[in-house]
Amino acid sequence: MGGDYAPGEIVSGVLKASEMFPELELLLVGHEMVLKKAYPELPQNIRICHAAGVMGMDESVEALRNKKDSSIWVATKLVKDGQADAVVSAGSTAAQMAAALLQFGRIKGIDRPAISTVFPTLQGGKVILDVGANTSVKPEQLVQFAVMGKTYAEVILKIAHPRVALISNGAEEGKGNEVTVEGHQLLKKANLNFVGNIEGRDIPAGNYDVAVCDGFVGNVLLKLSEGLGTSLFSLLKSEFESNLRSKIGAALLMPGLKKIKKMMDYAEVGGAPLLGVKGVSIICHGSSKARAIQNAVRVARDCVAGRFIDQIEESMSGEGGR
Amino acid sequence: MGGDYAPGEIVSGVLKASEMFPELELLLVGHEMVLKKAYPELPQNIRICHAAGVMGMDESVEALRNKKDSSIWVATKLVKDGQADAVVSAGSTAAQMAAALLQFGRIKGIDRPAISTVFPTLQGGKVILDVGANTSVKPEQLVQFAVMGKTYAEVILKIAHPRVALISNGAEEGKGNEVTVEGHQLLKKANLNFVGNIEGRDIPAGNYDVAVCDGFVGNVLLKLSEGLGTSLFSLLKSEFESNLRSKIGAALLMPGLKKIKKMMDYAEVGGAPLLGVKGVSIICHGSSKARAIQNAVRVARDCVAGRFIDQIEESMSGEGGR
Repeated sequence: MGGDYAPGEIVSGVLKASEMFPELELLLVGHEMVLKKAYPELPQNIRICHAAGVMGMDESVEALRNKKDSSIWVATKLVKDGQADAVVSAGSTAAQMAAALLQFGRIKGIDRPAISTVFPTLQGGKVILDVGANTSVKPEQLVQFAVMGKTYAEVILKIAHPRVALISNGAEEGKGNEVTVEGHQLLKKANLNFVGNIEGRDIPAGNYDVAVCDGFVGNVLLKLSEGLGTSLFSLLKSEFESNLRSKIGAALLMPGLKKIKKMMDYAEVGGAPLLGVKGVSIICHGSSKARAIQNAVRVARDCVAGRFIDQIEESMSGEGGR
Repeated sequence: MGGDYAPGEIVSGVLKASEMFPELELLLVGHEMVLKKAYPELPQNIRICHAAGVMGMDESVEALRNKKDSSIWVATKLVKDGQADAVVSAGSTAAQMAAALLQFGRIKGIDRPAISTVFPTLQGGKVILDVGANTSVKPEQLVQFAVMGKTYAEVILKIAHPRVALISNGAEEGKGNEVTVEGHQLLKKANLNFVGNIEGRDIPAGNYDVAVCDGFVGNVLLKLSEGLGTSLFSLLKSEFESNLRSKIGAALLMPGLKKIKKMMDYAEVGGAPLLGVKGVSIICHGSSKARAIQNAVRVARDCVAGRFIDQIEESMSGEGGR
């Protein structure tokens, strides 16, 4: 029931996923009456689980404790109780995180969960975290982010020996603020394939697999990238429509432009697991449409199949976490 | 002598500026022999001032004290001694800032100088600062940045009542890290046209005139924008050249695309004054070519003509600074 286009696009995405992954059993968590009326005939591998309430986008996280009938709480509980393997949601990220934290608990060695994103670069999607859960961090948390991001890159993106980078305002190890300068030293000592600092301009180039930063910086850079993409495409569009000559040019270029737009589209990625909790909870963009939801279901499946949570726990207790 | 293309492009820019602004007297500060040999005949309004040394891009700021023959030190001294009105440089920003700080001194009420940029948005160029001088700041400094940025927008960009925004990870006033949350409250109380927090995605939209942040965030967001622009144009270029159809399309669209590229080009802006020192020192991008230098000379002229430093001093002692 969460997200800008719920429940319509969410259900459409689940329908697509049910076709693509017939081996999965998909539980639609939401108001039974509403859903049954809108979708009287669902395929055999989709089942409705009733949840009377919805967490609003602006509701405080504290409200969640008193809203145990909300779809995000019920969905998370299904996983907690072993009736499902993963949650997927496009609703309030704060509520999703709180539900996961309260019900799944934290992975040992992780101070606070982190939100990651798969950022489109010239060399494919790269993992960036934290993009919003922690507005300020301690240097040790940057190492925890790195270990979780590395595991993500290995299990979901199938990258061997992921290169870990630290986002800073200069490539030299002495560059940065207090937290990143100390974080750099800790990352160097950790058992990670740490490739050093990267600057803003290196982010879209993609000479790394995982990049860590605090959630304030990560949030600004992620939203800035989305905003720049939107602005540039709107500039291009108005330019394309400005006269006949450019209309013809645009028509000829359309296949290539669509390819580029697809490369930069978060819907291709679908969603990213909340990192640091003992359960799979996939966070989708609030404006997710059907294709994003379908892809998020794939990410959820890959997390479960790849024993993602176990892998993070092992990384934290072993090599990477020290 | 500083910058990726010095002295060639710098001198070309100065030559262009000497044509465009015949009323200005332009002093080329650098090695006399080198410059005289390369440019035996300069127009009447360009004069060479000898400086034997150059500050390297990687040299420490401490080295500057022992390099008083470096072009940046000599150029700044010419202003300090009243023989020139403004410095323009594309060399090491750290050295330029140190030279200005040591020779001009700070404006009363400003804790530390800041570097600003004119960021291209859908609604024209907007002032963002700090973009690199201060990796961490106190809440009061955000107010100082706002006052200086506001004055910049008024004097150089000719914007009346500039709208000041605070870059954060959420629009609500409670969103942010400790410094921005407290900074928000101070900005609200200051005598500024404060419009509240903006998120990353709002930056390219341009519904503000001045946006403030710490120099770590500002540096990452500025370089990320440059990197995204470069990446996207390289993707477009390779797409345009991929087959005959798209080559024709690209040729038809070229005028429009050039217009967009020009909108996003820092060379149009030229340079931005170092803010908070008692003298005009225009910082140019290291990779500035002739057009950027020419435009930077224009910015220098506007700063002097608009009594930019006096205006900041007045703003700091008066309304905005409290």
